[in-house]
Amino acid sequence: MVRVGIVGGTGYTGVELLRLLALHPDAAVEVITSRAEQGRRVDDLYPNLRGYCDLEFREPDVAALVACDIVFFATPHNVAMNLVPELLDAGARVIDLSADYRLRDAAVWSAWYGEPHASPGLLPEAVYGLPEVRREEIAGARLVACPGCYPTSVQLGFLPLLEAGLVDAGGLIASSASGVSGAGRQAKVANLLSEASDSFKAYGVAGHRHLPEIEQGLGDIAGAAVNVTFVPHLLPLIRGIHSTLFATLNDTAADLQALFEARYTREPFVDVLPAGVYPQTRTVKGANRCQIGVSVPQGRDTVVVMAVIDNLVKGASGQAVQNMNIMLGLPETAGLEQIGLLP
Amino acid sequence: MVRVGIVGGTGYTGVELLRLLALHPDAAVEVITSRAEQGRRVDDLYPNLRGYCDLEFREPDVAALVACDIVFFATPHNVAMNLVPELLDAGARVIDLSADYRLRDAAVWSAWYGEPHASPGLLPEAVYGLPEVRREEIAGARLVACPGCYPTSVQLGFLPLLEAGLVDAGGLIASSASGVSGAGRQAKVANLLSEASDSFKAYGVAGHRHLPEIEQGLGDIAGAAVNVTFVPHLLPLIRGIHSTLFATLNDTAADLQALFEARYTREPFVDVLPAGVYPQTRTVKGANRCQIGVSVPQGRDTVVVMAVIDNLVKGASGQAVQNMNIMLGLPETAGLEQIGLLP
Amino acid sequence: MVRVGIVGGTGYTGVELLRLLALHPDAAVEVITSRAEQGRRVDDLYPNLRGYCDLEFREPDVAALVACDIVFFATPHNVAMNLVPELLDAGARVIDLSADYRLRDAAVWSAWYGEPHASPGLLPEAVYGLPEVRREEIAGARLVACPGCYPTSVQLGFLPLLEAGLVDAGGLIASSASGVSGAGRQAKVANLLSEASDSFKAYGVAGHRHLPEIEQGLGDIAGAAVNVTFVPHLLPLIRGIHSTLFATLNDTAADLQALFEARYTREPFVDVLPAGVYPQTRTVKGANRCQIGVSVPQGRDTVVVMAVIDNLVKGASGQAVQNMNIMLGLPETAGLEQIGLLP
Amino acid sequence: MVRVGIVGGTGYTGVELLRLLALHPDAAVEVITSRAEQGRRVDDLYPNLRGYCDLEFREPDVAALVACDIVFFATPHNVAMNLVPELLDAGARVIDLSADYRLRDAAVWSAWYGEPHASPGLLPEAVYGLPEVRREEIAGARLVACPGCYPTSVQLGFLPLLEAGLVDAGGLIASSASGVSGAGRQAKVANLLSEASDSFKAYGVAGHRHLPEIEQGLGDIAGAAVNVTFVPHLLPLIRGIHSTLFATLNDTAADLQALFEARYTREPFVDVLPAGVYPQTRTVKGANRCQIGVSVPQGRDTVVVMAVIDNLVKGASGQAVQNMNIMLGLPETAGLEQIGLLP
Repeated sequence: MVRVGIVGGTGYTGVELLRLLALHPDAAVEVITSRAEQGRRVDDLYPNLRGYCDLEFREPDVAALVACDIVFFATPHNVAMNLVPELLDAGARVIDLSADYRLRDAAVWSAWYGEPHASPGLLPEAVYGLPEVRREEIAGARLVACPGCYPTSVQLGFLPLLEAGLVDAGGLIASSASGVSGAGRQAKVANLLSEASDSFKAYGVAGHRHLPEIEQGLGDIAGAAVNVTFVPHLLPLIRGIHSTLFATLNDTAADLQALFEARYTREPFVDVLPAGVYPQTRTVKGANRCQIGVSVPQGRDTVVVMAVIDNLVKGASGQAVQNMNIMLGLPETAGLEQIGLLP
Repeated sequence: MVRVGIVGGTGYTGVELLRLLALHPDAAVEVITSRAEQGRRVDDLYPNLRGYCDLEFREPDVAALVACDIVFFATPHNVAMNLVPELLDAGARVIDLSADYRLRDAAVWSAWYGEPHASPGLLPEAVYGLPEVRREEIAGARLVACPGCYPTSVQLGFLPLLEAGLVDAGGLIASSASGVSGAGRQAKVANLLSEASDSFKAYGVAGHRHLPEIEQGLGDIAGAAVNVTFVPHLLPLIRGIHSTLFATLNDTAADLQALFEARYTREPFVDVLPAGVYPQTRTVKGANRCQIGVSVPQGRDTVVVMAVIDNLVKGASGQAVQNMNIMLGLPETAGLEQIGLLP
Repeated sequence: MVRVGIVGGTGYTGVELLRLLALHPDAAVEVITSRAEQGRRVDDLYPNLRGYCDLEFREPDVAALVACDIVFFATPHNVAMNLVPELLDAGARVIDLSADYRLRDAAVWSAWYGEPHASPGLLPEAVYGLPEVRREEIAGARLVACPGCYPTSVQLGFLPLLEAGLVDAGGLIASSASGVSGAGRQAKVANLLSEASDSFKAYGVAGHRHLPEIEQGLGDIAGAAVNVTFVPHLLPLIRGIHSTLFATLNDTAADLQALFEARYTREPFVDVLPAGVYPQTRTVKGANRCQIGVSVPQGRDTVVVMAVIDNLVKGASGQAVQNMNIMLGLPETAGLEQIGLLP
Repeated sequence: MVRVGIVGGTGYTGVELLRLLALHPDAAVEVITSRAEQGRRVDDLYPNLRGYCDLEFREPDVAALVACDIVFFATPHNVAMNLVPELLDAGARVIDLSADYRLRDAAVWSAWYGEPHASPGLLPEAVYGLPEVRREEIAGARLVACPGCYPTSVQLGFLPLLEAGLVDAGGLIASSASGVSGAGRQAKVANLLSEASDSFKAYGVAGHRHLPEIEQGLGDIAGAAVNVTFVPHLLPLIRGIHSTLFATLNDTAADLQALFEARYTREPFVDVLPAGVYPQTRTVKGANRCQIGVSVPQGRDTVVVMAVIDNLVKGASGQAVQNMNIMLGLPETAGLEQIGLLP
């Protein structure tokens, strides 16, 4: 049984890790930390876990974490980059769900996060944990940086087109929409039900922190610099990301449906829908799954790809567990067979 | 492996049976019927099941159903009562999720459903499938009538009080609220998002079909006739029932928290919350679980019980699977270990 | 043109006052205060008001407020009771939307709010601003305490029954549900969309601060002490209160429909629905209106009254404007002819 | 007082016309028709109108309609084109909210609506009722075709850019999202709360009926053929459209904020937000207003315009009333001063 530690378990990615790992056949959470909730039972904070989790939140403690086979960071950015070096030195393997190790270039990271990076020396080693792109590197990694939620959906949607060189990589457009849980469990006025429900808006249009991650990842896939106009929107619901992607085809004769199906046929968590079927966020709610539809409206030269994920699962904690399975040689789907909760 | 048949699989209780049974370690759905969708792949209608269900809907066919170890009816009322006799005669065991066999008195059934009962001879044999009350009878039953969603929450909430004789059974009040999925997947104007979201209302106040079921069940528990004022309300959400129950205590000194905890301590799917904690529908979303809180406001003589379930799980398909497990000698919790999807 | 001042205009009752008063034919807001947002344009915070409000938030300033014909307090409790004495001394007339002057007994107020009352000497003078009960007193008042949102719906629902002495006042039950805007615009985790949407729960069951107000108001109406079991619930929507009220009839022959219609026939903002029709929160959304339905389920001895309001309008700012109209001799409906926004 | 007739008043654009016209200072609804609800009081179907509308639905009757100064069609497509010729011949003036007269080319209409046009001879005369483009033609028209909801938002968003020739008109992208009320009040499974809430999806990607209307309108504005990739999405809310528009700038030095402000400075119902502020659907809920934000992310060469409307107001009934005001020489804002219902 794999022993798991979780740093920062009070947020939504933390509780989602607990939900998934509670039923994982080969893993058990041994340690979960939170300074703010130290001493409180986990199932007091999250009563859905009553009967499934007998832990209390405890203070971060390197020794206890290092005794685990794997340590997840489910923290806001700026926590992992300060603590991970010590853990790695002590022999831990780490999966960071935050943004701290996603960008290879410390200067770019600093420009977007407004502070110096605390452990830039680890950036070259950190593996970007998108299994559909880097499965083998993940398997051997000490430190995996889990992709952001938007970047997961955008990269999986553009990937087959860029790999095949079928679109103009200099003019990609991603119009994405996310449920409010993506903003975390912080008490902010903007995320109150009275502010965010019954409405829809774009935000971060001038520049969102996921933009450099998206461009880095798509650039790696394309083998050249790409240019993405990325507009995130806030959906009046809790879970779900829908990315609507636009690109100009340089070959309008290609069979895109076949291309997508072939690329993902062996991927357990990417599901290309039949031609003419478009994805909905509700069909992946609670599931570690990306569903994708592709269309060329009116047979013109613009391709539209639609990719949906649950931002807390394939966009965060589910993908983290998938990475853990790969790192530890477990079946990649272990503990990840939840079916989307529909209706 | 238990072979399962489902009659009427296109509705919400049908797809929920499929979601639960797809991951059941000891059961497999062999047959699923629908006249309207005959020949259509199940996962075309419900894309959350892609990869988990390789069936097509087929016409109802007694031979195919009888070959199953258990047959679920996930149909509107008035279907099972016409087909069940033939299935039982052919040796099938049946779990009916509809209202057809819930009331013992055919005349009462007719009064509330506006037509004669088609197989009144089976009413004495049908076992009311509330495991917390009739586990042993269920184990040996040929025909189990699954409780309605409201009645499940109301009965589990009042049960300890009535068994202990602590409240005035002649003046019970149940103010319940249900998500819209309880109304099924029929195309009705009243259940459109534009009609039912962003609003709250009572309905069926003068008399709802679940009233006689509630009074029959509570009467059995109390050992005497009871009188319930039952007011259902429509919640602007998909899944969840919250019943707020009021009764007048005839003994204000009783330790109700201890009473509830003792009554349900061995029940795997009823969870009494700690004193002072009240349930929320979200903590049982997708889970086969009833969470209960109890309070005596201001220390007066009125007790308030709050009971929540997911109407599609403990209120329908989960409870049906629980009954199947009991009938077939499987572990009662098999296939039912989903954790509430929170947030 | 009546000159209006508003203290504490950044919350939801503040912006709702602005929405209503912007189109009021006889009133204009001259001053709006907020320490936190001092110097910020109102329509920057609330872009729905662009073109309708040319004000900036300014620091509270007694002189500017006293120059107004009427001053609204749209503040949390504990603000008005400190500032109102000075304003009254300087000649102002005040309508307080907070809880500070709703209870006549300072000791009761202190027990529920956990601190001494700062100006208990004004409690005898403050008029409880429920126009359907105290219209004449309101007209002459210097200080009006606007009723709470729950208490408005509960009192208007029970009022005809208690005035007529038709029910047992010792065992009243109010099962109420409110939209999240009732909790205000404070940044609290519990009111995040990710916490409060897609769920339903009771809260404050052991004792909610609106209970003493409800019992005081109903006691005045009944002419004797009353006993109310009050259970509030949180609805996953922004605006709307639905109170489902239960009482035991001591005369089952009374024509309750006629009673309610007669009582409210001359009330411009209370609408008794036809027999058999039950109210919905959506039909009063944005409107200064209470819609009421009454039923005696199964012809037994329990009466069920359902009363809906928009908590921000008839439950707060609309009722405040109604009180202003009465105090200043304006037509009572001036500025309050919004129609419920349906669908 | 202008006498108004409404054909097909039971749908959402019908009730919205009634809500707006009930408070219009210069107009009164005299006739409202519905075959299905003939004889039923309007406020029985729509209780928000109790006290504001004393009409019953009646059978369509040419004489009664012709006696009105203006006749609105709030019907599905395929109704107006059969009845309007007779009304015009009898001297009526008509505002059609349906799609029947929006396209100038009968063959294009037939291709998208799958049937011949019943009165193609009127297409050249029908004026496209987007006041910001055709105010003068509208003033003199006998027959105005109100724009669709999506097309209103897309055209108002692209208009300044196309008029100024600043973008590549051959590669426009519109990623739009609409509330469910845009689908009307028909009983369809896809629009049930249990299907459409708590989810987000694209639809009509291969070709939506609003595409030819958008391309016709933008082509008129640009003075040349345009090419639009239009992807509509379904939002889990009732009211609101948000269009996120993308275009490639051919002049990255232009001051787009100033351009938009200048273009709309005299338009009463188009509000350009300050630089850096993006619109939200909630700030125009219930209001006849289009709010627009413009941004050039990262200072590259792609411009992003965000335009929001309430699909039932500026996207339908409010714009229809605006057209009526223009046609009849009333103040253009009469009856249209509702403020967005926020929160």
